[in-house]
Amino acid sequence: MEAKDQGLNRSRIDRLRFCFSELHADALLISHPANIRYLCGFSGSAGLLLVEPTKATLFTDSRYTFQAREEVKGAQVQIAKKGIVKALGDALRRKRAQPLVGYSAGHMTVAQKEALQTAAGGGIRWVKDANVVERMRAVKDREELKVMREAAELISEVFRRVVPDVKPGISELEVAGKIEYTMKQLGASGPSFDTIVASGPRSAWAHAQPTEKILKKSELVVLDHGAILRGYCSDLTRTIYLGRPPQKVRKLYDAVLEAQAAAKSAIRPGVTAGEVDAAARGTLRRHGFAKYFTHSTGHGLGLEIHEMPRLGKGEKFVLQEGMVVTVEPGVYIEGLGGIRIEDDVVVSAQGAEELTNAPRELIEN
Amino acid sequence: MEAKDQGLNRSRIDRLRFCFSELHADALLISHPANIRYLCGFSGSAGLLLVEPTKATLFTDSRYTFQAREEVKGAQVQIAKKGIVKALGDALRRKRAQPLVGYSAGHMTVAQKEALQTAAGGGIRWVKDANVVERMRAVKDREELKVMREAAELISEVFRRVVPDVKPGISELEVAGKIEYTMKQLGASGPSFDTIVASGPRSAWAHAQPTEKILKKSELVVLDHGAILRGYCSDLTRTIYLGRPPQKVRKLYDAVLEAQAAAKSAIRPGVTAGEVDAAARGTLRRHGFAKYFTHSTGHGLGLEIHEMPRLGKGEKFVLQEGMVVTVEPGVYIEGLGGIRIEDDVVVSAQGAEELTNAPRELIEN
Repeated sequence: MEAKDQGLNRSRIDRLRFCFSELHADALLISHPANIRYLCGFSGSAGLLLVEPTKATLFTDSRYTFQAREEVKGAQVQIAKKGIVKALGDALRRKRAQPLVGYSAGHMTVAQKEALQTAAGGGIRWVKDANVVERMRAVKDREELKVMREAAELISEVFRRVVPDVKPGISELEVAGKIEYTMKQLGASGPSFDTIVASGPRSAWAHAQPTEKILKKSELVVLDHGAILRGYCSDLTRTIYLGRPPQKVRKLYDAVLEAQAAAKSAIRPGVTAGEVDAAARGTLRRHGFAKYFTHSTGHGLGLEIHEMPRLGKGEKFVLQEGMVVTVEPGVYIEGLGGIRIEDDVVVSAQGAEELTNAPRELIEN
Repeated sequence: MEAKDQGLNRSRIDRLRFCFSELHADALLISHPANIRYLCGFSGSAGLLLVEPTKATLFTDSRYTFQAREEVKGAQVQIAKKGIVKALGDALRRKRAQPLVGYSAGHMTVAQKEALQTAAGGGIRWVKDANVVERMRAVKDREELKVMREAAELISEVFRRVVPDVKPGISELEVAGKIEYTMKQLGASGPSFDTIVASGPRSAWAHAQPTEKILKKSELVVLDHGAILRGYCSDLTRTIYLGRPPQKVRKLYDAVLEAQAAAKSAIRPGVTAGEVDAAARGTLRRHGFAKYFTHSTGHGLGLEIHEMPRLGKGEKFVLQEGMVVTVEPGVYIEGLGGIRIEDDVVVSAQGAEELTNAPRELIEN
């Protein structure tokens, strides 16, 4: 196993080196924890990875000495005594004149960039990395897909186990607690984001945090939950009605489900993210509900809960085989509440292949 | 209650305006979610708050329409149709010539800053905000201290309830699951960071995530856990020994406990953060264990799990009444494991007042 992991990580770093010429870079500095983990296996929160043509070095601090030794593959580990940025800066100062170093403008604050420039001195030319690692990460390899399939099945099972408890009388927080406890019982390391349990009018808040509010009869309840399994995220939303839903709710639910199916049908290698969004949005428009759909149709999923590509209006990003995305149209009506249906799918040659498999019909509890 | 909250928030924004002259700023742009929440109550993840001398405006997007209307006090809400940065940029373009706008270099990526400059045009002069909001937040007001006291009592109760289950045969992940479930039962909205349960040699990793590893007899177990209550964090660490601890473990434990007591005794208004760290470090040095203490003594606590001040070596930050900090010395020995003892305290005129109250003696399970 170990030998294989080493091979895997070496090959990711090697593939990254192909991007050096595209960027005209002599080296790449990786500062985003998820990118560092993807490339060399280190899961700590404080580290900088410098990838050069013939070597790679992870700079971290003494809190991570043992962890780095156990986790890191394909890179040397340097424990910084006087700060990670200082150690990296010293290493860069020793390079030949004026190396061009790629960095991530989207994952480095203005203050961090200035500290880095001070530490490395004026001899470095900095160039933006054009999100090369994020673009690599968008396409999952076989090992990643295996874990993501398991993570998606796990959260589907969590939903099935928790749904009988989603009844009038329980609080949103209690439901969220059961969800997160169940995912850990099933082997998840934790939630991939703060679990959303939103009931009644609060379900119209697309990003509501659970509160002590008690679920009541004749309310919509949106459950949006995800689990992390061996580093990879899943993300699943279902909407439940407490009691017999009125005609209006049924119509809205059916329209959202139809919009989701339309978006899934639009997914295949070669289409743009914007075309998938347009399929969902167009369906809701035909039903007269487009104005209630106030967010984008989905997002990439992997080591992070939000990754490339974003399935939003007009997005030009082209889908490729092996990408994993959520498909999650929703409608939000003040007073009445919200309805959202979300699944995780992988882009395959045959189209969208579903990873989550919880029941999709409107549940009446 | 509502009227009082409005007053509270208005007064925070008003106090912030006193800093305009220190920064020579005409306005302050707040981009960090915790700072936005502190100033105007908005708890969503996407927003920008512009504070001007006579008004304040929160720019957010349509996902947060209802939530912003319910939560925001002391600021106008503007729902951005074409992106939050674009909406803010348009607002800034309408200002009189060359306003000086403060921004947070520590909470804005290089890419965000560039997008902002593009949106706002060349007519804006940008100045760093010198962490004015973070400095305000370091000193808690009475309402904040009330919530933080409850959050600290809550996590202490979680520890007391879970400790009987920390026995040989249970996995780290199961213990973490029980901890997070119990905190939600007690009313927390969730953990304030990923719960750490690290047993045996893994307890020597200061930041270990829980795994499927089963707890065994004659192992140290470090539990580091915190809860969020009404937005505010608590943070508590205790170390348990499974069985009768050998003399070496007892000596180490006693030294860490003594170091923690020394640090607490050093805390009072007017001392520097570095002096508190030196008290803990000096105690461990006298016992010959200083080399095993590989992190700083503590950190500020509040809306975020890590805030100002950092209680680290040589830190010049001066403690003031009303600051809340953790005190958490630890030792980490490869093979043997780790021992850390952490409490939350508030700086009062009388010294450190403990907020967490779980038992501190070595528990033998």
